[in-house]
Amino acid sequence: MNQQVHFITRGVADLAAAQAFYLDGLGWEPLGIFPGEVFFIQVGPGLVFSCFEIDQFKADVGEAAPIEGTPFLTLSHNVATEAEVAEVLAVVEGAGGTVVKPAQRAAFGGFHGHFTDPSGLLWEVCHNPGWSVAPDGTVTIEAIEPGGDA
Amino acid sequence: MNQQVHFITRGVADLAAAQAFYLDGLGWEPLGIFPGEVFFIQVGPGLVFSCFEIDQFKADVGEAAPIEGTPFLTLSHNVATEAEVAEVLAVVEGAGGTVVKPAQRAAFGGFHGHFTDPSGLLWEVCHNPGWSVAPDGTVTIEAIEPGGDA
Repeated sequence: MNQQVHFITRGVADLAAAQAFYLDGLGWEPLGIFPGEVFFIQVGPGLVFSCFEIDQFKADVGEAAPIEGTPFLTLSHNVATEAEVAEVLAVVEGAGGTVVKPAQRAAFGGFHGHFTDPSGLLWEVCHNPGWSVAPDGTVTIEAIEPGGDA
Repeated sequence: MNQQVHFITRGVADLAAAQAFYLDGLGWEPLGIFPGEVFFIQVGPGLVFSCFEIDQFKADVGEAAPIEGTPFLTLSHNVATEAEVAEVLAVVEGAGGTVVKPAQRAAFGGFHGHFTDPSGLLWEVCHNPGWSVAPDGTVTIEAIEPGGDA
């Protein structure tokens, strides 16, 4: 199994609310919309984020899957400067998201804040000076001077 | 906010178990390991998956974040053929994962199965003939003839 994630799929009780947030609110372009079922958004090279109507999601993953038991998970969106963290959080709030951690210095030395989408999915908006991506998509992560929460 | 996910971060109670599964079991190459804290694995162009010690995860996301409330989420690993679905699930089981849905035809017309990692995170292994990625990373998703669960 080579080390690759191709899809991040989220089951949502309210597909219309998810569409209103991601497509109308954030203005993200869908790859495809299957009304009442699912919509797909490309969120990186070869990477798709989808919101899937919850009963169909449950049927898709099967009865044995621990669908209620995957807490402690965050999707992160990185930005180039500290100032952009608050800017993006403001956009998100305007789109119907909820800021749960305002922009602030992070314990690891970067600068970040967190929001939830209408379904409660947790996102981080982060400026991480130790993180970089080469033109071929290779990521480098370097330890940076810790700052401590402001 | 441009449509991009850079990190998928999972808080885990047992970091050693997560390392044993992803690094030793699956043989995935870490980008970096910070013992007792976090390890990072690149899982796509510009995309990082990390397992983060749970108390530090909680501190990182802050008290207002709904850390126990992000169910209904799947990470998918796509493969080129139907046969590879069962092959990958066998590798995963050997590495310490748990198959929760054996390889089978999916309702959408593809072929898939599901497993959980030692922390309970749900993954799908999927052959989806309607999905393709161009050399520049652009994804195309086409509807395919539905099959129904076998």
